[in-house]
Amino acid sequence: MNNNKLRIIPLGGLGEVGKNMMVYEYDDQILVVDTGIMFPENDMLGIDYIIPDFEYLIENKDKVRGIVITHGHEDHTGAINHVLEEVRAPIYATRLTRGLLEVKLRRGNLEKVAELHTINASDVVNIGPFKVEFFHVSHSIPDSVGLGITTPAGLIVHTGDYKFDPTPVDGWPTDFAKLAEFSGRGVLALMADSTNADKPGWTKSERVIDPEFEKAFAEAPGRVIVASFASLISRMQQVLNAAESVGRRVAFVGMSMTDNFKMARELGGYLDIHDDVVVSLDEALKLPPREVVLMGTGSQGEPTSIMGRLSMGTNRRFDIKEDDTIILSSHAIPGNEEVVYRTINRLFRRGANVLYEPLAPVHVSGHASQDEMKLMIHLVKPKFFVPIHGELRHLKQHAVLAEEAGISPENITVIENGQVIEVDETSMQVVDRIPGGYVFVDGSRVGEIGPSVMREREALARDGVFFVHLTLDGGGKLREEPEIITRGFVYKHDSEALIEATKEKVEETIRNSKGNYYDAVTQAVRTFLYEETGTRPVIFVSLSWF
Amino acid sequence: MNNNKLRIIPLGGLGEVGKNMMVYEYDDQILVVDTGIMFPENDMLGIDYIIPDFEYLIENKDKVRGIVITHGHEDHTGAINHVLEEVRAPIYATRLTRGLLEVKLRRGNLEKVAELHTINASDVVNIGPFKVEFFHVSHSIPDSVGLGITTPAGLIVHTGDYKFDPTPVDGWPTDFAKLAEFSGRGVLALMADSTNADKPGWTKSERVIDPEFEKAFAEAPGRVIVASFASLISRMQQVLNAAESVGRRVAFVGMSMTDNFKMARELGGYLDIHDDVVVSLDEALKLPPREVVLMGTGSQGEPTSIMGRLSMGTNRRFDIKEDDTIILSSHAIPGNEEVVYRTINRLFRRGANVLYEPLAPVHVSGHASQDEMKLMIHLVKPKFFVPIHGELRHLKQHAVLAEEAGISPENITVIENGQVIEVDETSMQVVDRIPGGYVFVDGSRVGEIGPSVMREREALARDGVFFVHLTLDGGGKLREEPEIITRGFVYKHDSEALIEATKEKVEETIRNSKGNYYDAVTQAVRTFLYEETGTRPVIFVSLSWF
Repeated sequence: MNNNKLRIIPLGGLGEVGKNMMVYEYDDQILVVDTGIMFPENDMLGIDYIIPDFEYLIENKDKVRGIVITHGHEDHTGAINHVLEEVRAPIYATRLTRGLLEVKLRRGNLEKVAELHTINASDVVNIGPFKVEFFHVSHSIPDSVGLGITTPAGLIVHTGDYKFDPTPVDGWPTDFAKLAEFSGRGVLALMADSTNADKPGWTKSERVIDPEFEKAFAEAPGRVIVASFASLISRMQQVLNAAESVGRRVAFVGMSMTDNFKMARELGGYLDIHDDVVVSLDEALKLPPREVVLMGTGSQGEPTSIMGRLSMGTNRRFDIKEDDTIILSSHAIPGNEEVVYRTINRLFRRGANVLYEPLAPVHVSGHASQDEMKLMIHLVKPKFFVPIHGELRHLKQHAVLAEEAGISPENITVIENGQVIEVDETSMQVVDRIPGGYVFVDGSRVGEIGPSVMREREALARDGVFFVHLTLDGGGKLREEPEIITRGFVYKHDSEALIEATKEKVEETIRNSKGNYYDAVTQAVRTFLYEETGTRPVIFVSLSWF
Repeated sequence: MNNNKLRIIPLGGLGEVGKNMMVYEYDDQILVVDTGIMFPENDMLGIDYIIPDFEYLIENKDKVRGIVITHGHEDHTGAINHVLEEVRAPIYATRLTRGLLEVKLRRGNLEKVAELHTINASDVVNIGPFKVEFFHVSHSIPDSVGLGITTPAGLIVHTGDYKFDPTPVDGWPTDFAKLAEFSGRGVLALMADSTNADKPGWTKSERVIDPEFEKAFAEAPGRVIVASFASLISRMQQVLNAAESVGRRVAFVGMSMTDNFKMARELGGYLDIHDDVVVSLDEALKLPPREVVLMGTGSQGEPTSIMGRLSMGTNRRFDIKEDDTIILSSHAIPGNEEVVYRTINRLFRRGANVLYEPLAPVHVSGHASQDEMKLMIHLVKPKFFVPIHGELRHLKQHAVLAEEAGISPENITVIENGQVIEVDETSMQVVDRIPGGYVFVDGSRVGEIGPSVMREREALARDGVFFVHLTLDGGGKLREEPEIITRGFVYKHDSEALIEATKEKVEETIRNSKGNYYDAVTQAVRTFLYEETGTRPVIFVSLSWF
């Protein structure tokens, strides 16, 4: 390793590069930025969530000088317990982000182990050889920061998730002055959020939601039910404002939403509300419907969320009523569209009216669009540019935008997770590739589920299982009729004849085989079932000998 | 049944009402419109495709007087063989639609059984008590028609899939004059396509794609590879035009694309090309890359399509090269986004440049948007309005639009598949509900896979299977160590200790049980595995007795 160079490594993030974790390394000392999780894609069967493969940090745990968390969303905070179990280092976060981290640490019984430091935007903290200057960015959660990281190799600007919202809900826009100041000092490399690299123009301000909420809240003939992410603290503020303006009370529903609301309110400074606007769910359910707003989770159609349960009629405390107006204030995560739309259809079927994108502008993205990305580049004027926080297609497009904004193509490097960049004042190169993918978490098992298990699950899911048990005597003759059990294979009413025919096939196979019954029967059943049904269930054969 | 009333029943179509099949019934005589299939949603594990539940037609097969197919897309044609196997009736279709149907009928060996009639837009055909007037509509396939159905109860206008493209590729816009003429005669009910009811404004003309294609074809440094649906005949025309304008030759790749191209060309009138523009794939691969366009399927990222294979590096005839430009000329079907984006990322990784929505306007929808929907209503001026061809959320929105366009709310009826409307000149009512859902086709098995099998597959996919085989002697003692096999459950390296511990648990359970070993072991293993791993595999226990 060249000790005069800064090493930069994105880790984790499923398809999204460096989304969950970035590693900055200089002179054998490491700064970690973010410790997030991803949620599984549709065909990652049975997986609860996904964490970055941070084997590199475990191997180099003595070099880790600090962990900075840029903001409080799951894809930047969710793996904190997994990381802390392996790597001990001080954690730096703003007040709200720290509050959200503490909720997680308590669940993992790690609150005593964690060394937490509260920082403010505009603070400067030395972490090993890194002088980290935090600067405020606007995003869909308050108290988000980007980082100016001064290293002996030069100044790196890491945007984190950001947008240039001119009228953010908390009134605190992204710190243009700081970005310009960085550029005055000379920025070696910009690492920038690429999430919306395929969206032209400028991301709408959070403010555009306010009049939509006010209109919907005023016109709704009965209750209003708003679904969003539990961490969208500023969306809570907008719901509270709109409710107050039309004389409705707000009740938060569900543990994660209620916990986050309480935490943000207790911290103070993040929610500006009058005491009597918020009521308990019990109180809300006793009020006239026209005076009520309920806010809960479930904007992704998750079957276990409030909105999922309401759509199925399985919520315990209350049901959908004819005059309810439901607002899905969020964007369907790619891959979730089908489930979200199914939930919407079910809510309509129960008589509710549902407002959702694109029917009504009840959500805006928290990430910069193309023109903002170019503005970021113009403000920071970096020598080198590395798009992060996006799939390869977003990074490639962000690279095109950077070139349009004047960065010369040879100074732009598109990398994937695990690729190692080395940079100094004269050059930037990809020098290495380390394991940098992701690790499945399934139940309490971390990393035990690999691609081979996923393929087995796919096979099981495609055509089910077909189990044949044989009892043979010493001479290789069937002592009893073959026993057959299936799951996920055939519909009972139609299957009897098929099962009988399979038994006959097995008996015939045993009669014609001279030993090696297991393979012979497996093969015969596989061929027979494919011929008869066109499907290939997973076949188990077990033998008992007498 | 009231014999003076017309009965209208939408069937099939997964969430989309009447998308695959509509039934019109008067005086015990039935007209069927369309016989389509749907493709499974992501969590419909192992299902190949889905057909409408047309049990009602089977029960009333003697009443069916005719089957009209509005256009050649799979969701309107794909179930023709399934229907013809049960219900024999003359089929009416335009020339291109008939050509596409005949390809299917040949595959099912039903071409001799089918009684096909070619019709032209503006033809009038009497089918039982129904006088059907076909009128041209523009859509993303040529030769699409809507229907004016004169019944003793009144005139029904059934739009089929349509848009009001002012500059369609084939130069043949939707027949405004006919729609106005219907309205002059007085329309009892309008049944209209709701697909884009949540899209404001007017759907873009197919023509907007032309300059994009020309620009991309001219600028591409190497080959151009266009992916689209095999049935988008007009998209083929646009590719041919753009290729010719920049001096490239076009080769079609893959059976379905090639077959449809040949069929459309042989029919004549659907593709306007110079002979030397089209070359074989072999010829194309020998030409300089800058002179080549390849067009194939795979715009949905299907792993078995050309584009899927190219992205994985498993295509036999050719691979992606550094300078290839790939154009995905289609919209990702909801639920397919994840797979499409993964394919795009893989193509980028192989060095290609990829143009896709929303990065470049290389596709437009074939369905009307909100303002066109209102125009349709103004042109037709129906007394009653029934939104069809959409999920419930689209139908509800289409109903809102209809009301805005002047239809009084009590004359608008939103129905779901299987709901039966009765209409006469004075009233429209939902009178009945029949089975009208869908039937899974899995391999060669039609309708054997129901919700219970799907739930079993889900359980298998979530946590895999765990199989325990026990050999007991007459006294209920284990004669051998329990045998355990798993699939989709644990990663081998980590699982040995768990399997050993489970065996001990099983042995302990057998020792402490007095009979009922099957249930005792199943329950003990389930509890043990949940405690140890937090997951719930499907557990099989089999017993052999000595």
